[in-house]
Amino acid sequence: MPVYSISHVENVRVCVVMVGLPARGKSLISQKIVRYLSWLSIKSRCFNVGSYRREIAKDAVIDAEFFDPLNTEGLHYRQQAIDAAIFDMMKWFTEENGVVGILDATNSTRKRREMILRLCRENHIEPLFLESWCNDKELILQNIADVKTTSPDYIKTPNDIATQDFLKRIEFYETVYETMDTAKDANLTFIKLVNVNSQIVLNRIETYLESRIVYYVMNLHIKPRSIWLSRHGESEFNLTGQIGGDANLSERGWRYAKKLPDLVLKSLGEELKHTNLTVWTSTLKRTQQTASFLPYKKLQWKALDELDAGECDGMTYEEIEERFPDDFKARDDDKYEYRYRGGESYRDIVIRLEPIIMELERQENILIITHQAVLRCLYAYFMNVPQEESPWMSIPLHTLIKLEPRAYSTLVTRIKADIPAVSTYKEKGTSQLGEAKTGELIFKSRDLINNSEEAL
Amino acid sequence: MPVYSISHVENVRVCVVMVGLPARGKSLISQKIVRYLSWLSIKSRCFNVGSYRREIAKDAVIDAEFFDPLNTEGLHYRQQAIDAAIFDMMKWFTEENGVVGILDATNSTRKRREMILRLCRENHIEPLFLESWCNDKELILQNIADVKTTSPDYIKTPNDIATQDFLKRIEFYETVYETMDTAKDANLTFIKLVNVNSQIVLNRIETYLESRIVYYVMNLHIKPRSIWLSRHGESEFNLTGQIGGDANLSERGWRYAKKLPDLVLKSLGEELKHTNLTVWTSTLKRTQQTASFLPYKKLQWKALDELDAGECDGMTYEEIEERFPDDFKARDDDKYEYRYRGGESYRDIVIRLEPIIMELERQENILIITHQAVLRCLYAYFMNVPQEESPWMSIPLHTLIKLEPRAYSTLVTRIKADIPAVSTYKEKGTSQLGEAKTGELIFKSRDLINNSEEAL
Repeated sequence: MPVYSISHVENVRVCVVMVGLPARGKSLISQKIVRYLSWLSIKSRCFNVGSYRREIAKDAVIDAEFFDPLNTEGLHYRQQAIDAAIFDMMKWFTEENGVVGILDATNSTRKRREMILRLCRENHIEPLFLESWCNDKELILQNIADVKTTSPDYIKTPNDIATQDFLKRIEFYETVYETMDTAKDANLTFIKLVNVNSQIVLNRIETYLESRIVYYVMNLHIKPRSIWLSRHGESEFNLTGQIGGDANLSERGWRYAKKLPDLVLKSLGEELKHTNLTVWTSTLKRTQQTASFLPYKKLQWKALDELDAGECDGMTYEEIEERFPDDFKARDDDKYEYRYRGGESYRDIVIRLEPIIMELERQENILIITHQAVLRCLYAYFMNVPQEESPWMSIPLHTLIKLEPRAYSTLVTRIKADIPAVSTYKEKGTSQLGEAKTGELIFKSRDLINNSEEAL
Repeated sequence: MPVYSISHVENVRVCVVMVGLPARGKSLISQKIVRYLSWLSIKSRCFNVGSYRREIAKDAVIDAEFFDPLNTEGLHYRQQAIDAAIFDMMKWFTEENGVVGILDATNSTRKRREMILRLCRENHIEPLFLESWCNDKELILQNIADVKTTSPDYIKTPNDIATQDFLKRIEFYETVYETMDTAKDANLTFIKLVNVNSQIVLNRIETYLESRIVYYVMNLHIKPRSIWLSRHGESEFNLTGQIGGDANLSERGWRYAKKLPDLVLKSLGEELKHTNLTVWTSTLKRTQQTASFLPYKKLQWKALDELDAGECDGMTYEEIEERFPDDFKARDDDKYEYRYRGGESYRDIVIRLEPIIMELERQENILIITHQAVLRCLYAYFMNVPQEESPWMSIPLHTLIKLEPRAYSTLVTRIKADIPAVSTYKEKGTSQLGEAKTGELIFKSRDLINNSEEAL
């Protein structure tokens, strides 16, 4: 029988219709929403009209004039692009049971939005308009800089020319742009973000999914920051191959704890060595012992405790295989969904980590010392790792991982402590611990999300 | 060492300054926020200026003219009332370490709000203005009806005269009222609710506590509905006095399960018997077996699972007392905070139930079949039971509880199935199970919150 998290309470499909001039962060917001919802097992996809346009008009010259509302050739291509994106999105809703589709385009005019609204209504999809409105010049220029360096439209264009061209493109859009308005659009469900989220207007937000998206968007910030992840140092249970429990650190685990302050300083570099950061641990001794030499503020979270192995707590994998062979196999077959007798599954951890993720989005520099399964789930969120892969990622002991979220990707740095530790990686189909064959997975600085593709 | 939930991440104090004409639901919103935050262990209190005014002007005639902005005597009393309320609030912040204080008054003018703003800034308290703006006549009349029947100002006044007088009182306020405005109040942190929450404007919401209050208020609705709570039927573990586990129902437990559909129908009455409701259970067998004869949609929630007793799972209280005498005593001394070795405390349950509460606020008719400790926490939220009492409440087996949240109170109906079951109530200081001495606690239809007191 399926187990529900809140995301399953409703049976609705939502089309998030982005609205906004170019360089207003629409693609960034779209892709963050997709990542967040996918992590929560809500099937989501972004349809970026810009990439459709690039495909369809690949032989045309794409400069600012292409976007002149009086340029009939440009208009023709752009209409084809939006039609193709909507067609694919509707197909995805129907054939792949999509739940949240995001139409990432400027959708500048009320006429365009009414067309999308009508299509959504005909297909029993709830339309949620999400406008990013911005008049903060600095923010816009920063966004343009991001787009310029990543957009295929400007691959061969020198920087200053690209900026000028892009500003002109925006001017063309401005001539027809109609902002969302609580009077004129009173009947629509919409979120209007003013200068990121310094002001937010919510109109007719009704379903759970909508309110969830609102809450997430409300908590995003764009200040640069880093997140550090580490497992606790090697524990006495690690030495004996037992899972769970609340053991102390081993002698080598203590050595890692003593070295951790240095690793953090090294990762900060000379100029940032006075950066203030906060350490989050679980409530279990081995994470607190690992944090004990760090000269920063510390918080304990029950939600960061290791996956609860229920009746198998304290056993080795061999013992589990012997005593519960069917369970052992079932877990290998679907490690994400498998719930230990009286314990938890990876999916359960994701549900209890959701408030931690929300709080991480709000915070600046945080160092998290936690456990193998929990760290896999946190890492999967930041690096967009699919659910079927995340429980099999190798996250070795005695290694500090630094994540630096950027506009369209996350930089990963791995700092090894050079203190030996046992491997706690169990490969599929065996109860033996050993080095991970898929161990390189974690260290590929994989793109968080696709490259920026500015909208049609 | 203290364990943190998200509420502890920040070290801020917030003053929620209510803004709105009379009969806009300000007191209701204030009191719901206090109840929600208190349940989350965030120290909160509401300061209702109307009750201060009633105390200060107890010899004056309180009719509409009292609120005429030209009535100097009325103005004098009202000024004294707001001064006294603010004085007490500031004292509470300082001397009792208050975290969220709510100033429940009309705070109609920008001048008044600037005075409060200045005071907050001087005392390092974050001001959050929360306006309830409403032009829906039906909603206003419904609010007036609620206030009339509960306000001490109208105790001796016939209904129609009270309504007329109250409408006139509102008119006086309207002559000076200034709504929150994104241009004029651009520098303030505020939430503006338009017609409950059909439209919401958020300005400069920055801290976690603020965003939490926004999310809660966003999810409130005022449609009438009921919530049913029941423990699972008697289980085989109940018979042997064991805690935790995942046992099947006993024979008597199955009889309760079979009778439950009838009890629900009885609680609905003839005219409502086709009401649609949804059943939520935990992931444990005994709750699903109890739900198995109910002809409604069912959802399973991991978050509704019983308190995890960790190493004590499956033991009787006698065994726990024998094996872990210090733990046994520690739990009796502070049952809310005590966390079982490798398991949970009541506080941990509240944290994992928070999304359930949020979802319950959004939903209409829900029947929850869960476990003793979880039910205590849910009940404590709806009935505003203090944390030190809630773990000691008696919630007998084989009893359906129906809650009907009303504007200023919650009606409680208890429907006994008349099927015998063991008692699972453990009194403080003993390991014996027996009838609860404090058993009547749960069945007092205690007021959810104080009576409505309309603002100054």
